[in-house]
Amino acid sequence: MKELKKTNRTKVNRTPKRAVYEKETIYKILDETFVCQIAFKIDGQVFIIPTAFGRKDDSIFIHGSNKSRMLNSIKSGEDICIDVTLIDGIVAARSIFHHSINYRSVIIFGKGKEIDEPEDKLKALKIITEHIIPGRWNDARKPNEKELEITSVFEFKIDEASAKIRTGPPVDEKEDYNLNVWAGIIPLKTIAESPIRDQEVRNGILLPDYIKDFSMRVNSSKIKE
Amino acid sequence: MKELKKTNRTKVNRTPKRAVYEKETIYKILDETFVCQIAFKIDGQVFIIPTAFGRKDDSIFIHGSNKSRMLNSIKSGEDICIDVTLIDGIVAARSIFHHSINYRSVIIFGKGKEIDEPEDKLKALKIITEHIIPGRWNDARKPNEKELEITSVFEFKIDEASAKIRTGPPVDEKEDYNLNVWAGIIPLKTIAESPIRDQEVRNGILLPDYIKDFSMRVNSSKIKE
Repeated sequence: MKELKKTNRTKVNRTPKRAVYEKETIYKILDETFVCQIAFKIDGQVFIIPTAFGRKDDSIFIHGSNKSRMLNSIKSGEDICIDVTLIDGIVAARSIFHHSINYRSVIIFGKGKEIDEPEDKLKALKIITEHIIPGRWNDARKPNEKELEITSVFEFKIDEASAKIRTGPPVDEKEDYNLNVWAGIIPLKTIAESPIRDQEVRNGILLPDYIKDFSMRVNSSKIKE
Repeated sequence: MKELKKTNRTKVNRTPKRAVYEKETIYKILDETFVCQIAFKIDGQVFIIPTAFGRKDDSIFIHGSNKSRMLNSIKSGEDICIDVTLIDGIVAARSIFHHSINYRSVIIFGKGKEIDEPEDKLKALKIITEHIIPGRWNDARKPNEKELEITSVFEFKIDEASAKIRTGPPVDEKEDYNLNVWAGIIPLKTIAESPIRDQEVRNGILLPDYIKDFSMRVNSSKIKE
């Protein structure tokens, strides 16, 4: 199934022509970053917490302290909402009204499934780590028993999700194209600057190639107009 | 009052040493971007929608179509949650467990106040526009009566808010400093690329200085380590 089914929750109501339900597009957006926003309820009040995530196949994984209010809300079986938003540029139209933002965002609804078994937890933590910096898992010290115990890990199936995308130049009212106003796009992008070595790294330890690769990949990503 | 009062909703429970309730710090984070995430409820289900905002003094302003579900939820008097998150870098520790992210985030709770009077609406839309691209309001065509009518504008007082900030190098377990693992920070930052002129801009209209200034300001912003 390449296309996700629209539901009441994922159906885009405002500017539906910007909606995308195709898995490939949704996954590409998720893979371009590693921070999502999670909205959840406690006693009826909504909260948002930004958190790191990793995607593999049709799931995303998050983790955190087992004392986290957010994770306890997820644990209780609440339906939450996950948002990932990439800002690609500011769209300057001739009229204030038609100013806009070029963006790609994904929204996912569902319940989290807690991962209990230490071995499965390790697998999920590897997915998160490798989603953020591919190559890091095998280089750093793996979580020990105690660290695993105090970490909660959750999986969310990406089966109720949609993307919303705006690209391209400003669209103005016909008569406004005669105005003497500059219009266009200011592209925005995230770049990685030179890694800053921790002062206490042992002598002789060089910057790993996979971190150089990470920076190159981030910095060469093409902006979608 | 320079410091906001902690409430049950804004009190940071996880890693409270990262919490900041000082207005100046909160406003500086809000002013470094222009997109927030808004979490709201419809029939008990939580939703997140990313949206542009502007801040002036102790308020933030958002706007949108008067058909928007989010704005109708705000109109109904629901308490919502607004999140702004800036990602400053990836913190690569010697152990997987101590990997982290350098970030600055703000969370705001409250009810929105709808702005009804056309003149006040214009003032709020000017605040949003100038928050995003200072100088743009006086250059572009102002909203007309019809455009104002179909736009809903809301103000939120920033009186129940907190920031959470992580900066600096990785912090590992004492015994891990002996590991032969590279550790440090990969700084991430948002930059503006060269503005892309809309093909239908009239001949002779040059790129405005305030857009050049915008790009310079974004690109010279210093990363917090």
